[in-house]
Amino acid sequence: MASAEEKIAKIRGASVVSSLIATVSSNPIMITDVHPEIDSGRFAVKRTVGDTFFVRSKVFKDGHDILKVSILWKRQDDADWHVVPMKATNPGLDIYEGHFLLESNTYYFYTVEAWVDVWESWRAEVRKKLAAGQEVSLELLEGRILVEEALDQANNSDKASLAEVLEQFRRGLYVEQCNLLLADDVQTLMGRGTNRSSLCRYDRILELFVDRAGASCAAWYEMFHRSQGIKAGQSATFADCERRLPEIHALGFDVIYLVPVHPIGRTHRKGPNNTLFARPQDPGSPYAIGAIEGGHTAINPDLGTLDDFRHFVHTASMYGMEVALDFAIQCSPDHPWVKESPQWFQFRPDGTIKYAENPPKKYQDIVNVDFYNPDALSLWFELMNIIFFWVAQGVKIFRVDNPHTKPLPFWEWMIREVRRKHPEVVFLSEAFTRPPMMQTLAKIGFSQSYSYFTWRNFKWELIEYLTELTQTDVTEYMRPNFFPNTPDILPEFLQKGGRPAFMIRFILAATLSPVYGIYNGFELCENEAVADKEEYLHSEKYTYKVWDWERPGNIKSLITAVNRVRRENAALREFKNLRFHTVHDENVLFYSKITVDYSNMILVVVTLDPFDRHECMIEMPLDSMGLGAHENYLVKDLLSGAKHLWNGVQHMVRLDPDTSPALILHVVPWPHVDFESPSW
Amino acid sequence: MASAEEKIAKIRGASVVSSLIATVSSNPIMITDVHPEIDSGRFAVKRTVGDTFFVRSKVFKDGHDILKVSILWKRQDDADWHVVPMKATNPGLDIYEGHFLLESNTYYFYTVEAWVDVWESWRAEVRKKLAAGQEVSLELLEGRILVEEALDQANNSDKASLAEVLEQFRRGLYVEQCNLLLADDVQTLMGRGTNRSSLCRYDRILELFVDRAGASCAAWYEMFHRSQGIKAGQSATFADCERRLPEIHALGFDVIYLVPVHPIGRTHRKGPNNTLFARPQDPGSPYAIGAIEGGHTAINPDLGTLDDFRHFVHTASMYGMEVALDFAIQCSPDHPWVKESPQWFQFRPDGTIKYAENPPKKYQDIVNVDFYNPDALSLWFELMNIIFFWVAQGVKIFRVDNPHTKPLPFWEWMIREVRRKHPEVVFLSEAFTRPPMMQTLAKIGFSQSYSYFTWRNFKWELIEYLTELTQTDVTEYMRPNFFPNTPDILPEFLQKGGRPAFMIRFILAATLSPVYGIYNGFELCENEAVADKEEYLHSEKYTYKVWDWERPGNIKSLITAVNRVRRENAALREFKNLRFHTVHDENVLFYSKITVDYSNMILVVVTLDPFDRHECMIEMPLDSMGLGAHENYLVKDLLSGAKHLWNGVQHMVRLDPDTSPALILHVVPWPHVDFESPSW
Repeated sequence: MASAEEKIAKIRGASVVSSLIATVSSNPIMITDVHPEIDSGRFAVKRTVGDTFFVRSKVFKDGHDILKVSILWKRQDDADWHVVPMKATNPGLDIYEGHFLLESNTYYFYTVEAWVDVWESWRAEVRKKLAAGQEVSLELLEGRILVEEALDQANNSDKASLAEVLEQFRRGLYVEQCNLLLADDVQTLMGRGTNRSSLCRYDRILELFVDRAGASCAAWYEMFHRSQGIKAGQSATFADCERRLPEIHALGFDVIYLVPVHPIGRTHRKGPNNTLFARPQDPGSPYAIGAIEGGHTAINPDLGTLDDFRHFVHTASMYGMEVALDFAIQCSPDHPWVKESPQWFQFRPDGTIKYAENPPKKYQDIVNVDFYNPDALSLWFELMNIIFFWVAQGVKIFRVDNPHTKPLPFWEWMIREVRRKHPEVVFLSEAFTRPPMMQTLAKIGFSQSYSYFTWRNFKWELIEYLTELTQTDVTEYMRPNFFPNTPDILPEFLQKGGRPAFMIRFILAATLSPVYGIYNGFELCENEAVADKEEYLHSEKYTYKVWDWERPGNIKSLITAVNRVRRENAALREFKNLRFHTVHDENVLFYSKITVDYSNMILVVVTLDPFDRHECMIEMPLDSMGLGAHENYLVKDLLSGAKHLWNGVQHMVRLDPDTSPALILHVVPWPHVDFESPSW
Repeated sequence: MASAEEKIAKIRGASVVSSLIATVSSNPIMITDVHPEIDSGRFAVKRTVGDTFFVRSKVFKDGHDILKVSILWKRQDDADWHVVPMKATNPGLDIYEGHFLLESNTYYFYTVEAWVDVWESWRAEVRKKLAAGQEVSLELLEGRILVEEALDQANNSDKASLAEVLEQFRRGLYVEQCNLLLADDVQTLMGRGTNRSSLCRYDRILELFVDRAGASCAAWYEMFHRSQGIKAGQSATFADCERRLPEIHALGFDVIYLVPVHPIGRTHRKGPNNTLFARPQDPGSPYAIGAIEGGHTAINPDLGTLDDFRHFVHTASMYGMEVALDFAIQCSPDHPWVKESPQWFQFRPDGTIKYAENPPKKYQDIVNVDFYNPDALSLWFELMNIIFFWVAQGVKIFRVDNPHTKPLPFWEWMIREVRRKHPEVVFLSEAFTRPPMMQTLAKIGFSQSYSYFTWRNFKWELIEYLTELTQTDVTEYMRPNFFPNTPDILPEFLQKGGRPAFMIRFILAATLSPVYGIYNGFELCENEAVADKEEYLHSEKYTYKVWDWERPGNIKSLITAVNRVRRENAALREFKNLRFHTVHDENVLFYSKITVDYSNMILVVVTLDPFDRHECMIEMPLDSMGLGAHENYLVKDLLSGAKHLWNGVQHMVRLDPDTSPALILHVVPWPHVDFESPSW
């Protein structure tokens, strides 16, 4: 705010002279359109360790001077700027570009600076004149003066070299003087010493947060802990959950995400199918957090102890898997905070505590904290300390429940504070809400976001949405985590389309986005819904359940295969490289992911129709594959194992929703028709 | 710079607690994507007196509160903000919009603020619950508390009304209490007084400059003063120029723009056709400014005296025309400044003054001032004072020669300083240079800009360029002045295409852009060029010339007709309303300009081929015309006078480059087929 007010003060009140002085001293070089930049630098750009960070800017000045342009960057704890030269990649549009490697999981800062290269400008002018046959004696004298000036300011080793240049100049004749001053070694010498009085810097320092690799690529398995056992009508334990780890590991998942593990309130506990009154044996929703046994740092005794939890986390890590916890700030009326810190809650005129509502809906089993109560400071710290508590138990990933119903300033502060100590912590925003809020939660720091993918089923809407996510500035800050189902959402497409629909949605989630997840039961194609709603019938949220994890009709072999393909193909672990291509069928989607060096090329053809077979023409994007019109290429379907030797653009494909709803084509250029050579 | 550094300090150095406090106190309401905004508010948006200014923003907050959103605006000299409510025009995207009328030729400031409407939020919640048949006794008590709080802070007249509400509430039963608190008059009362503790403001104050109307709509006639007479081999005078005013007025022009009127240097004066040595009788280029007779505030004696100039300006004003002057900062070596202020110039090692060069080209008749010389302050003031001098002589429009070769900070400072005293002054930037510089000159304040229109001849490139100029953010700051020719540029299209090409380019310039201009001789279709160059042979820049202004083959009647059409049709005086439509011929362009209320609809069909006749199908944009598929409409060609009664989309048109290269169609909806009624 201050700077805008200052600007007005300058404009309105200041005298002509002081305004002039301010302007004279401002930058003669324009540095504009620095990219990436989110909302004028208000928010940090996101990247991942190992990424190359590309910076682009428009830089220009009046006249014909030659400019030197650089990226300045430093990590949060670096004292000095690192300098990376930028190149003029499109001189007609004054565009400069540069890049550097991101090696640390931390906050970075970057900006752009530029200065007039006086010596190079002199050299270019003299060269043009010589090329046009013009005499340059006077220019040589001007060059000598520049060398003399450089000598005055040079360090000791350069001083000697520059003095030697001047001595040679003094002794030389016209042609020798020309050759001397235009020589590359003199250029190198002058490049170190030349006058940088024109140095200008972009008027903002931009911020970048570099996550660890797992933040941008992972397969999640959402586990409803209490239904992982084999005994009907009673809770499974962490030990039961642990017994499932080999199977989930074999399916190829990286993250086991648990719904809340805390004690569940008894007051207004919900019964089966979200009914108002629970029977004594009903477990209640794990999102009604807090009871006599404790709150957000306690473990529901039905599941085990904190030690059992730590053992589960440890065992998962032995399989190379991480455990993610749910961070749901709502409380049950029995949460210890209600007695210990009643000032954090809202009470009504009749003295009762205000429960959650979204009129006309009422959530009697949940009471919400008031983030702006007069004692908010202690509340915010308490909430942050919950994260630190679980980090200490080995949890580094948090799926945050409904962040859009809590204040943005809280999240922005808390995520930054956590990252100051633990930059490796990952936060997933579960905000199925309107686009500005969903995007802003990503901007203020959430590492990943639930997205509208859950309801994007048809070709036009998948292309439109994925293009927004991968080809616009949204990709600078938002990493969608594609979930085809959640405990709250059983989309109509899965209800209606049955097993083929589950295969289709799984392939889309896992090959469109490097980070995706399923909620348990998806692998079994479970799709029994509450009538006319997108909700599970007999939801695990309100009851115990026993699953047969080998139930006939499951799609576990497909899941295993696709997760293996993801692991073996670097192109599928990127997101911005997604491109859609032409297929002559409105029910079939065709897209590619190709690494920038063409070393890994994956093309996916998937039907969006769970009912009928489709036979249609695809147009292979030879340009995007770095292939000429008549170059051959080998094609292998990584799902069926079928191999082809193809040439040209148009190819016929067949998709059967029951047996082969998709082709995942691995393409290798093949200059010679020789079936013996390649070892694939 | 300060704020970015502060941000880093906050992030890196500050303690957790102070960071928390800063965050808690920051805005709970997000106000983002304020439009229009240029480069994060770094530059002012441009509009014209009489425009309605539309502001759009995304505004949202966690939870279900109802927000009130407003534009704040004030003129440079207003003490207080004016407040304009914004409406939620797209609640699904959290978009709010509002507008206000621009009535003053001055700088404006604007921003957006928002607050939670506590009463309206309460009222909406209660209404939803009542609609769902829920009991709201407790909510009524909460409503009463809100009224009591409002009473505490109300002014005297509201105090009585609120007390009366509370008294009625006390006496009423449940249903009466409901009706009372939900009533509209209570809403009005509470709307004035309700708690605004949540008030948030967008974090930038944005700037807007509102020009007088002439800045955005005018027809310019560039006059080479010394060729306006009838005597061969000698200079015309201002009196000769004055004699041409009735004719130029009759052609329909608004602005007479004169090339520099100052004394011309003799040292290294250029001869005919830009040759190096002038004969004694050669006048030299008027861009080599300054001689023994004076500099930038003097008049070339060949043209007359300052009094003669003022007389010319006065006479033009009697015809409703304004005079624009050229502001060319370069000097001849004979300019008085060279002796009076040699510190403003660069001298070479041999003691000679540095003349202008663009290697290998040399401009020996011109020396440039050095804007960064140690005495720059006095130079910048001297240059600004030249503008003030001519403003005092009645000149309010300046065409600035080559601004891209002078520092941007100079222009930004000078234009703002001039406008502080004379907001009516208009600056046209003649910068035929790369896009970032051309656009930045517009951003820093130039009212109008020369553009690439001069070289855009074909359908695809005209559509691409005009779409950029009218449908992107460029339109917020850049007003192109479309010149089909200049003294320096005789485009190849005019050289090759002859008279039809002149008609085509004129119609395009005058109907695509509300501000356009021609350089004299264009109306005569003069197109004799230097071989293989886009330059005039025997250019007036270096010689005297006598024109026959009634020369056969001239297109003056077309010019007169088109300028009349522009004057009579408001749609043509706008720019952002340009839309292109389908015509099934790659050599024909079809576009419309329609006022927002459909009261004036102009559709232009113009051939781009100066050689052949074209007969082709156009598709009338019924949607853009507010017409249903089966509504009739009257069409009149404003050039030929032909009338049609049309229905439906597809219509055949015939264009003949020699006789009718364009149709300028005026469309009026016509619900009844009744040829007698309309009076057109």
